[in-house]
Formats: sequence, structure tokens, C-alpha cells
Amino acid sequence: MAKTNSGRFFEDYSLGQTLVHAVPRTVKMGERALYHALYPARHALYSSDAFAQACGLPFSPLDDMIGFHVVFGKTVPDVSLNAVANLGYAEGRWLAPVWPGDTLRSESEVIGLKENSNGKTGVVYVRTRGLNQHDEPVLEYVRWVMVRKGNVDAPAPEPVVPDLAKVVAPGDLVIPKGLDFTGYNFALAGEPHRWGDYEVGETIDHVDGVTIEEAEHMLATRLWQNTAKVHFDATFRPDGQRLIYGGHVISMARALSFNGLANAQMVVGLNGGAHANPCFSGDTVKAWSEVLDKAETDAPGVGALRLRLVATKGGEPFRLRGDDGKYLPEVLLDLDYWALVPL
Amino acid sequence: MAKTNSGRFFEDYSLGQTLVHAVPRTVKMGERALYHALYPARHALYSSDAFAQACGLPFSPLDDMIGFHVVFGKTVPDVSLNAVANLGYAEGRWLAPVWPGDTLRSESEVIGLKENSNGKTGVVYVRTRGLNQHDEPVLEYVRWVMVRKGNVDAPAPEPVVPDLAKVVAPGDLVIPKGLDFTGYNFALAGEPHRWGDYEVGETIDHVDGVTIEEAEHMLATRLWQNTAKVHFDATFRPDGQRLIYGGHVISMARALSFNGLANAQMVVGLNGGAHANPCFSGDTVKAWSEVLDKAETDAPGVGALRLRLVATKGGEPFRLRGDDGKYLPEVLLDLDYWALVPL
Amino acid sequence: MAKTNSGRFFEDYSLGQTLVHAVPRTVKMGERALYHALYPARHALYSSDAFAQACGLPFSPLDDMIGFHVVFGKTVPDVSLNAVANLGYAEGRWLAPVWPGDTLRSESEVIGLKENSNGKTGVVYVRTRGLNQHDEPVLEYVRWVMVRKGNVDAPAPEPVVPDLAKVVAPGDLVIPKGLDFTGYNFALAGEPHRWGDYEVGETIDHVDGVTIEEAEHMLATRLWQNTAKVHFDATFRPDGQRLIYGGHVISMARALSFNGLANAQMVVGLNGGAHANPCFSGDTVKAWSEVLDKAETDAPGVGALRLRLVATKGGEPFRLRGDDGKYLPEVLLDLDYWALVPL
Repeated sequence: MAKTNSGRFFEDYSLGQTLVHAVPRTVKMGERALYHALYPARHALYSSDAFAQACGLPFSPLDDMIGFHVVFGKTVPDVSLNAVANLGYAEGRWLAPVWPGDTLRSESEVIGLKENSNGKTGVVYVRTRGLNQHDEPVLEYVRWVMVRKGNVDAPAPEPVVPDLAKVVAPGDLVIPKGLDFTGYNFALAGEPHRWGDYEVGETIDHVDGVTIEEAEHMLATRLWQNTAKVHFDATFRPDGQRLIYGGHVISMARALSFNGLANAQMVVGLNGGAHANPCFSGDTVKAWSEVLDKAETDAPGVGALRLRLVATKGGEPFRLRGDDGKYLPEVLLDLDYWALVPL
Repeated sequence: MAKTNSGRFFEDYSLGQTLVHAVPRTVKMGERALYHALYPARHALYSSDAFAQACGLPFSPLDDMIGFHVVFGKTVPDVSLNAVANLGYAEGRWLAPVWPGDTLRSESEVIGLKENSNGKTGVVYVRTRGLNQHDEPVLEYVRWVMVRKGNVDAPAPEPVVPDLAKVVAPGDLVIPKGLDFTGYNFALAGEPHRWGDYEVGETIDHVDGVTIEEAEHMLATRLWQNTAKVHFDATFRPDGQRLIYGGHVISMARALSFNGLANAQMVVGLNGGAHANPCFSGDTVKAWSEVLDKAETDAPGVGALRLRLVATKGGEPFRLRGDDGKYLPEVLLDLDYWALVPL
Repeated sequence: MAKTNSGRFFEDYSLGQTLVHAVPRTVKMGERALYHALYPARHALYSSDAFAQACGLPFSPLDDMIGFHVVFGKTVPDVSLNAVANLGYAEGRWLAPVWPGDTLRSESEVIGLKENSNGKTGVVYVRTRGLNQHDEPVLEYVRWVMVRKGNVDAPAPEPVVPDLAKVVAPGDLVIPKGLDFTGYNFALAGEPHRWGDYEVGETIDHVDGVTIEEAEHMLATRLWQNTAKVHFDATFRPDGQRLIYGGHVISMARALSFNGLANAQMVVGLNGGAHANPCFSGDTVKAWSEVLDKAETDAPGVGALRLRLVATKGGEPFRLRGDDGKYLPEVLLDLDYWALVPL
């Protein structure tokens, strides 16, 4: 037993600590083919080299969420193996496209620690960075999780809660080098709606739904080397259900949002997010969006939309919280992100 | 709701109209790997670069049906989102191999329209072409579908029913440039049967069967960006079943036909086809073939067989229609195609 | 029916016979992406080009078991279509890495034949070799299977049972050219344990479990062109269950063993193996290992561990056989192999 990884407990983290996450991974077109088979992903920039070239890129990069999942997956053995809950995300930015053939690795810095009053758990804040084979950052984000203490008698650390931005400022978004939407082909992209056609406060029901299968979420979750047993081992939970990786719901909702947001081509900022309720096999996932904000960028023809993306498993669209202020039981995901859209 | 695609209704089509279908797609070896995992595809020309080179090609192209599905999938949002039934195919020809790395897009021309006497639906005929990144056609075929009217008061168009060939003439088949079967290795291909060994009227039971799983048909259908909700959303039909994309049955049957038709290497013509009955998860698909015709070609060592490929979900082989002339309930697919076979 | 493959029966084999197996296959990164989605495979050498380059290789080869499955799959139509049981493996050696883009084919030589006393079956011993497009061997192993006689009146052949080594001698293991573990990065590999940290007799519980799904084992099995109907056709067995390809269990167990054996990077020898009990969908596969032996190699920084890898479907770890000497009913696999580990 001594040679296997039993994960870190709350007392194993210290402020400023750097965690070098294991198993770098080379990602190519095989990962993209699988991603496009697992999700109804159709954003043209991630589908066609020719379309990407017409937008000023050398060829089509891998989907933004592939980068997120690969970087995130590596952190699981060091950050969330003993996590009770994934509490939040903030200050996420995509810093460079991930190209087919890139090799990604992840590092995290512990930026906050706060033991809970029950003395049994604590909250760990990490800032995670994904790096490619040239040691260039491709992604960074803050995540905080509630982690069990292994030894309840371990002393509580000095509480430090980082001051996190509620929203990534538009000026801090990184636009991929060369991106130019002035010659954007709306017919090939699938919808005519420009940045100017979206209004703050507007809501969009993405209509389509996908019923979740065990085989699919396990394929997806393994693909990112996230091997937390709760996703794979039906004997692990007393109810015999495999909990679905929250990132599977993120990618499903993002792909479903094509229908109404086909031109929200690239996710470049993650302002926040909550996995509101667990998702299990047999649930039918649908999605709706709300336009939260709009911003201009320096890149030719490129605007930014701040969007709320909500995934549900039933119920009517556009309902998020009950009278008690809590998420409704059918809400799976509430994600707040910035995407690049042609002007 | 206004921003999502609700599909075209019968009155939205007009004769001569060109539909530019969305989301071009770059296909590579990742798509092939998935195709060969989803179907028991073993035709050597699509499996091995070395085998393809020995047949005069620069390397192994992507499977003929990959090209068909990619081109077809793009047409769904514009042609069949409100379709009541997929009525038929005709005049299908593969015009050039799809090479790994090619980017495919699709266009359709409306070539026929006929409102039904009930005034609620009509038949739309389209000729669809798939084009690669060099704007060269790789595939064309005619499909006709029954589509609902959105407004039953819309006036009926002048009825135009195109005059379609019952069979693609052998002289119109396009043989891939360089194809040469004179040095064909039958041992590596898996069977000794040459073009001359098949007789018109001969029937072949392909013996093997595959029981269909939800996860597999959804992976396959998404891979081709066919996102019609009836294939994915278990809450969509009153019976809670997800209808399986007819193309999944085509590919399954074509792959099963390897056992007996291992040397029917390349599909180059689609004379017709009917999805006789719906297929659902749990069905066990088997296949049988009938040799309908034979033809010579100009390419060295290359003959053509016209084949009927029938997929079933149970029952005895070689039974197609009942005494009433209708397809038997166990028949899923009746496909009529031309394949290239070594002499 | 005459054109389909009904497989070989015991009387169809003769000593010294060479079987050229059909359908060569080009394998690339798409196959790897699928492999890493189907199994929790995380060994760094097979995950990252950069890691492999730091270990002296030009880039990351395909997983050792991909090579095994591709070579094995091709033998099924000629060796085990009418097999009653897969009895054993011996003298397996990986002779060269399989690089993305390689085209593999397989040949087998019949090296032993022995009719059983019941006169209805016999044991066939074959030595199988996998070859790449340069006709270089990449893998060889001996397998013996019990095969039905097609004609019980066929005369029994002179019994020949080959003298097989119980263990591949460490000096016979082939180390990939250039492999050098002197600069091995244990942090990126995921565990700190070196060759010297493992002791003969030590046992490791790999803790994690995966519940098996029909869609996944069928995807895996087709990927290697193993199309034996018992794995795919739910109507084939009287109990309506699809038997899971034994190689699926091998790969699952090997991947699960990462947790405790993350540095057992490359499998280079297969000493023996038994598929102790059948595996079906719904089984939760876990794994444990035992260190059987240790050896040095000539390659810089590279040691070898001889490991027993046991896959189970329930029960306590480290239990293999009952008082009667037979495998316990929960044991799926008992595999004996050599792996390369950093000193």
C-alpha cells in the first residue's frame, strides 16, 4: 500500500508550495477526433484548418476545453483526490492556443488555506498553470476545493484567503496571435449572429439535449488522465452510481451552446463556475445561456462576450435558483466565461 | 429562441436554391481510428499504408463511408431537421479519395419539390456535393426527404420530380487515380475471392452480428457532426428510445460484409438505398449481400461489383420483403452500391 | 456461405505450417488517443514526446500493449475462431518499439500439435511474430489454444509439445535502442519509487477499480480488428452475455497498475499468462501485483522487474488460488511479465 498514491490531506498543503503534477501529455488530432465524438462540438475554428487559416491562424488549434481538461486532469492526484467538494474557479485565462503535437504539463501554487470550523476539513486555493513543451503558459486559473484532514489533530494553518477578481477584466484577455475576424464566413460557421446582435441580459435556450452514458463520460474523463475512482468504480459509492466528472458537463454544455452561439468561437476567460448538482448516467443534459457583458478587443473584427452557461438535467430554461437563493435541483453547472465573437 | 436553428420547412425550399452547409471539417487519422473502433472495418486498403501503396495509391485514404458521413452530416441542419422520413438515395458517386488532413464541406442544390396531397408535408430532392480544401468534389449524391410544412397555408410549389437514374452506369464510376490491382495480395487482404469468383444472383450471409449500444451510435453520429436530437435525447420520443442514425447501420453492415466480401475494397457508387425500419440500442445487426451486376473498368486489374447490402435485426438471411411487397419488420437497410474488386 | 471464413479446425493445422494473417494495419496517434481513453493509461513514456526524448528515444512510442493487441488481433481468424479455450502464453518479447505511422502485420508458425484423448479437440501451439513495414520484428510470443476438430474422424497428428521456457531470461530481453533512464524525472512520471525500492516478494494493491461497459470493450476489441463474434453478438451465447476479450482485461490491469508501478514504464517480456475466469460487462476490475524477480540490464539507468499482475472482479487483494489449487472465481487474469524501471 505504501507505494500507491493516497492523495494529499489538508495538513499536507502549505502556503506558497509548488505542486509539480505528473504525467505530461502530447495531444494531437486523435484527442480532437475523440472530443468531437464525445461532444456535439461544431465551432468552425476548432473543426477546420481552412476556416482557421481564413481567421489568421496557421491551422486549427485544439478546442479550448481540451486544453482546460488536460491541464486540470493532471492536478487531480495532487489536489482533489481527497476533496469533499470542488468549490469554485476564478481568474481563468487561456494564454496561447494548444496546437496538435503540443506536450502539456501542469503546475499549481498553493495561494490560500483556511481550515473549517469543524476541524475536519479545510479549503485549499491553488493557482494552476498549464505549460507546453516550450515552457510557455497556455492556461492559468484558480480553483478552490474542500479537502479532508488526514489527521484531525494537525494544527490549523494561519488562514489566508486570496483576493480573487470576480471577473477577468476584458483588457487582460489574451487574444491568440494573428486572430482576425474581418473576413469571417458566417455561412460556413453556421449562424449569422454577430457580436452586435447580442444584447446584455439576453437569454438563449440551446434547445438540444443529450442523454448521458457511462461509457462516454468514462472515455472522456480518462482521456484527460483524470482517474479519480468515483468516476469509474460503481462499487465506490453506496448508491452504486458513478459520479460524472464536472468537466464532462462543462464540455457538453459548451458544445450544446453552438445552437445559438455558433460564433462564440473561442473561450479565452473563465470568470467563475459552480458544479451546482451532481450528474449521473441517464440524465439528459440541456443548456441555456445569458449574455452578461460585452467588450471590444484590439484584434481586427474580434469582440468579446461574457456569457453565463447553465447546464440542466430537466426543468424549464432560464431558472437558476430557488426562493432560498440556492441552485435548483435540476441545475448542474453555472459557468461564467468570456468568448471571442466576430464583430 | 430566435438565435437557434429551428430548421427549414417545406415552404422554405425553392427549386434551384443552393444550400451552403455549415462547419467544414478537417479529417485525419483520429477519425479513422475511431471509425475502426466503432465498426469491424477491415478492408485492407483503408487499414494499411503499405497495402494501399502496393495498389498504386500514395497512402491509405480514409474509408469511403467516412467521406459519405462527413458530407451527409453537414446537410442535416439544412435538409432533414424537420424531416418526417428519409425517402431515398440515387446517383451517388465517390469522385476522389479523402486523404487524412483533407478539409471537407458540403453544398446542396434543390432539384425537386412536390407537396403531398395532405397539404401538410412535401418531398424535397437535393443533389449534395462534398468538396475538399482544393474545391475538388469528393462525393455527390441525390437524397430526397419528406419535410413538414411550417405554415400549412403556404402555397404548394409547381411540382418537379427529377428523373433519376436507377443505377449509376459503370462507365460513370470514377476510379481513384493510380489504382492498380494487378499485384493485389489476397492473403493480406483476408480472402482469395476475385471478381471472377462472384456470380450475378449469388447471395452471401456475412454471419457475424453486433449488438448496438447507445454510447457507440452517439459517438459515431457526433463524429460526423450530425446532431439531430432524436439520436441523442432520450426524452425526445414518447417511447424514451433514441433512434439510431441510419448511417450507423450503413457502416455497420458494410463492415460486417468483410466476411465474404473482403476484397470489395472501395465503394464508388451508390445506386439507391432505403432505411426500411428503425434501429434501436439492443438490436443485433447482421448483414447479407446479393450480387446484382458485374462490370469491367479501365483500371488495371480492377473490376466492379454491383451489390445489394441488407442489414437485419434478427430473422433468416436472404429474406427482404413480405407477401405484401413491404420490407419485413426485421430489415433495417437495403442498400444498392458499386464496389471495386480485384480481377 | 462458401465465401465466408468459418475458421480452421484442429485437423487443418500441420507442424511447421506458416499462417500469414490478414489485414495489415497502420497505427498512429489516433489509436493511442483511443487507448488512453479506454484505459487509465498514464505511463509517462507513452504519454509525452518530451518525456520520451529525455529518456533517449526520438519521441514517444505507442503503448507496448497496443503492439501486442494489434499483432494478436490479426491471428484470431486463423488461430482462435474455433478455439474452445486460450490456454497460455510463453516466450513473449517486445523486439522494437512501435512508432506512430508504423504498419503492422502478423505471421504465425505452428510449433506444436496434440490431440486430446476425447478425440474431439486438440491443442495447437503457435509462435506469432509481428512485423513492421520494414519487415523488422516488433514482437514475438508463443500461444496455445484448444481447438475443435471439424471432422472427428480426421486422424490424430503425431503429438509434438514444444519445450517452452518458464521465464524469458533477462539477457534475452531487448531494450529499445537509445533508452537511458539516468536523467529520469520521477516527479513528472508520478511516483518516486526506483528499481531498488522494489523487493522480490513484495505485493502492491493498485487500489483503483473500473466497472466495465459493453461499449468500451467492444470499441477496444474492434480497434485491434479482433472480430470474434462472442465479444459483439449478445445473441451468440445462451446467457445473452458478451464475453470480454481477455486483452481488454490485460490492458485495464496494466493501466490500473500505474498506481504503485508508475515507473514500470515499458513491458518487454511476457513469461506467461492465464485468463483465469471470464469477464462480463458490469464487473468492476481491480488489480494487484507481486514482484517476482529483479534483473539488471546493459542500458544506462535501466533495470528490469519481473512482475505478476493479477486482475480481479471483487474479493480481497493478494488471493489467487483456493485450497484446491484452482484460481479463485474472482480472479480474471494472472500475467507474468518483465518491465523496464529506472534504477
